[in-house]
Amino acid sequence: MPIRAVVWNENIHEQTNDIVRSIYPTGIHNAIADALNTDDAIEATTATLEEPDHGLTEDRLRQTDVLLWWGHKDHGAVSDEVVERVARRVWEGMGLIVLHSGHFSKPFKRLMGTPCALKWREAGERERLWVINPRHEIAKGLDDHFVLEHEEMYGEQFSVPEPLETVFISWFAGGEVFRSGMTWRRGAGNIFYFRPGHETYPTYHDVNVQTVLRNAVNWAYNPQAALTAIHDAPNVPVEQALEPIEERGEKLHQAGEAGYK
Amino acid sequence: MPIRAVVWNENIHEQTNDIVRSIYPTGIHNAIADALNTDDAIEATTATLEEPDHGLTEDRLRQTDVLLWWGHKDHGAVSDEVVERVARRVWEGMGLIVLHSGHFSKPFKRLMGTPCALKWREAGERERLWVINPRHEIAKGLDDHFVLEHEEMYGEQFSVPEPLETVFISWFAGGEVFRSGMTWRRGAGNIFYFRPGHETYPTYHDVNVQTVLRNAVNWAYNPQAALTAIHDAPNVPVEQALEPIEERGEKLHQAGEAGYK
Amino acid sequence: MPIRAVVWNENIHEQTNDIVRSIYPTGIHNAIADALNTDDAIEATTATLEEPDHGLTEDRLRQTDVLLWWGHKDHGAVSDEVVERVARRVWEGMGLIVLHSGHFSKPFKRLMGTPCALKWREAGERERLWVINPRHEIAKGLDDHFVLEHEEMYGEQFSVPEPLETVFISWFAGGEVFRSGMTWRRGAGNIFYFRPGHETYPTYHDVNVQTVLRNAVNWAYNPQAALTAIHDAPNVPVEQALEPIEERGEKLHQAGEAGYK
Amino acid sequence: MPIRAVVWNENIHEQTNDIVRSIYPTGIHNAIADALNTDDAIEATTATLEEPDHGLTEDRLRQTDVLLWWGHKDHGAVSDEVVERVARRVWEGMGLIVLHSGHFSKPFKRLMGTPCALKWREAGERERLWVINPRHEIAKGLDDHFVLEHEEMYGEQFSVPEPLETVFISWFAGGEVFRSGMTWRRGAGNIFYFRPGHETYPTYHDVNVQTVLRNAVNWAYNPQAALTAIHDAPNVPVEQALEPIEERGEKLHQAGEAGYK
Repeated sequence: MPIRAVVWNENIHEQTNDIVRSIYPTGIHNAIADALNTDDAIEATTATLEEPDHGLTEDRLRQTDVLLWWGHKDHGAVSDEVVERVARRVWEGMGLIVLHSGHFSKPFKRLMGTPCALKWREAGERERLWVINPRHEIAKGLDDHFVLEHEEMYGEQFSVPEPLETVFISWFAGGEVFRSGMTWRRGAGNIFYFRPGHETYPTYHDVNVQTVLRNAVNWAYNPQAALTAIHDAPNVPVEQALEPIEERGEKLHQAGEAGYK
Repeated sequence: MPIRAVVWNENIHEQTNDIVRSIYPTGIHNAIADALNTDDAIEATTATLEEPDHGLTEDRLRQTDVLLWWGHKDHGAVSDEVVERVARRVWEGMGLIVLHSGHFSKPFKRLMGTPCALKWREAGERERLWVINPRHEIAKGLDDHFVLEHEEMYGEQFSVPEPLETVFISWFAGGEVFRSGMTWRRGAGNIFYFRPGHETYPTYHDVNVQTVLRNAVNWAYNPQAALTAIHDAPNVPVEQALEPIEERGEKLHQAGEAGYK
Repeated sequence: MPIRAVVWNENIHEQTNDIVRSIYPTGIHNAIADALNTDDAIEATTATLEEPDHGLTEDRLRQTDVLLWWGHKDHGAVSDEVVERVARRVWEGMGLIVLHSGHFSKPFKRLMGTPCALKWREAGERERLWVINPRHEIAKGLDDHFVLEHEEMYGEQFSVPEPLETVFISWFAGGEVFRSGMTWRRGAGNIFYFRPGHETYPTYHDVNVQTVLRNAVNWAYNPQAALTAIHDAPNVPVEQALEPIEERGEKLHQAGEAGYK
Repeated sequence: MPIRAVVWNENIHEQTNDIVRSIYPTGIHNAIADALNTDDAIEATTATLEEPDHGLTEDRLRQTDVLLWWGHKDHGAVSDEVVERVARRVWEGMGLIVLHSGHFSKPFKRLMGTPCALKWREAGERERLWVINPRHEIAKGLDDHFVLEHEEMYGEQFSVPEPLETVFISWFAGGEVFRSGMTWRRGAGNIFYFRPGHETYPTYHDVNVQTVLRNAVNWAYNPQAALTAIHDAPNVPVEQALEPIEERGEKLHQAGEAGYK
């Protein structure tokens, strides 16, 4: 069975901005999904902000292996309930790939626990992405670097937690650098942030970018069953202790009582 | 100038439970603050849930170098506004030491971005804490292990992000293990989680536990100025680029415009 | 094509000690290889100390995807040349799984850069391995813990570098704990250390241990081409710079000259 | 008592190359030691390759808190015995700061366990070092970046283990990036690699570089007693087990016997 990827897109600028629409006539989400679907191991569909539940019902998420997230103009419009739903699924093992301006999306900030802020400049300048972790699954098939001739600049400090591994670092013509590809694990879920993707440039039509996205979906996919137990804080009764112990000392809780949350 | 530590305590069980009151007649917060104040480098005060703003006004936090957090029975009573205030100060450089049942406190969950769940058993069993990172500042003055004869058991999986470093791992008589001391950096702030401290046992009167707490305050303290810029995502105008670049391509934003959040 | 695993064994105690021989009549290496070969994705063969080049010629290593290493009595007998050969292949992408007393093997110490020391006791005591990273590929199919009724104790501090991820922590009946499963990446190679496996107990016949070993081989396998460029420190001539620059200032090196090593 | 820093220098180019001599008339080691000694908390002395034991006797190292290492032309001339001595002291708690071309020095490669290779170009191009971890002790007093107008380029991949934390990332005019400041802990010792410092440019006279070096010495210093036990792998006899256990099963070792190494 292929990996079930869902490409989520805010899908606002495609409807309100002629430039963006001309580059992505069917929306960024469909451009990305099309690129993913060239990989037989992936079956990508899409979801957008305007759908009920933003297209991310409990049911849909339960059947999602990897979620990709693109948002920019209206992060605040995403309901907190859906954000929490996404976070819970990540902890259970759903992969999450956060794209470009999604650094400020609610699900990403929720899972990082930091501001996720950065410097930026929209000048169509040259970005060169260096592979600093060659043979990482996400860098498969890439040369030691690749170039995007026109991109928005993002500059450090990027206020995220120290990653598990850094895969890409970007060089910008205007003088900045940026950790453009980083991985984290949160619960059973693999998270990847990938920097490029400003909507006024044809970044998601770039062959190297598409390679990274396909690799990332394969990397983020956790084939094991959902770790639904991660939400519990079970009491282990004394009589079920793995080693024989006797209850001693004073107690707050009665047997079988739930803990405080 | 000494390190300004604030020991925050929910302070509920001390008022409602005779056992807890008999062990900590002036409250867990005062027992801990007294232990910290034996170190000339530390000046510890206290704050509790029942105070206005839970004792953590903007002003107070601005003058706090390291915050210690003990809560258990009513995490939900802590206002979201104060939680956000604490998180922001941590990102700016305030140290945070989370104690025992504080694993489920709102500020800790906010900063970790994970469930922070675990197994537990209240049986007064023996806990042996092993120093797995000797000569870490937090383990200063300790032997290779120390024992708490009566403690609540916490068992893995403890669903937190992979730490920067692990300092302690606990062995429990009933057969479980637990990563009892872990460090993270979030923004400019150092975070330490320390497991022991169930309120029905005299844990905070233990000399080794007190040593760990004093060490942890010294370790968590960041003497540099608050990193208030961490909340910003500044635009860098083309004409101020560090390397001369020309604006190219299409744009969404006007010069000087704030980014979307 | 299946993953080509090679199980390396010192193979001394099997020939000199009746107990060990009775448990592993064909040697620990064959017991492990047999367990691996029940996985269709793996094709395991063996190599031993006594063979020419210890069975690890350049050619053999070039055709090895994952190497497993068991040694105990005579680490010093392994030639430094073979150690260097193994290290180089790991950097190029060969997986390495180090077993039990292999913590003191030359290849492991070479790749860790630390003493890799620990406490130990040979008393056939109970070991309980806790999965602290559920849904990690190496823990696939395991419950939240498993028990080995008779094992040698290894206790912390285990002086290795902070790992990429910790998968298992062991509880011992005698009161110690140990990080029993840890991962590292060195160059393009994935490394896993797995604690159990004392030769006087039937550990490698244990079904959970065998599951871990099969999982670990699948995890450690890097399907990408060998990163042979990792040994080079190439000079990038000014005229081939990616951005046009002019040579300035004073120089030590002539164009095309190799760097100092 | 101040931190006892020793600045080690190969000290070859200062004697053989007019350019280098003109920039560092008393040697790179003295330039650095002078810069360190402006900090009252540091007492810096020097050692060079040509001295007996390269100036690093057992006695000298025992009295060294932090060692700085600059070498380039003749790494191979450093005796393996001294390398091992340095590594052992790092594991015991001595700080180590490796400078520029020291990436290929024997002690650094010994402690990293990887090739430590990189790309390079000697063209006097502009390097801009970005602080990606503001408020890290090593970045104290710096702005968000600083520039070295003429430096040798080092480019990724830099084949070192994933660091504890990354402090600096460099941008180069010719189009490359490099992780210019990284930290690791090995045993009880703190290690910092700092990229700049090509001998034909006046890098060590730069005020920002000097600030980093002073900060790094203060950061790397471990005030606790030497962890000499890190070299041992002690047997814990059954009768001294912390929890009462009975010896069971078969044994290889006699009581009190040393383990195999």
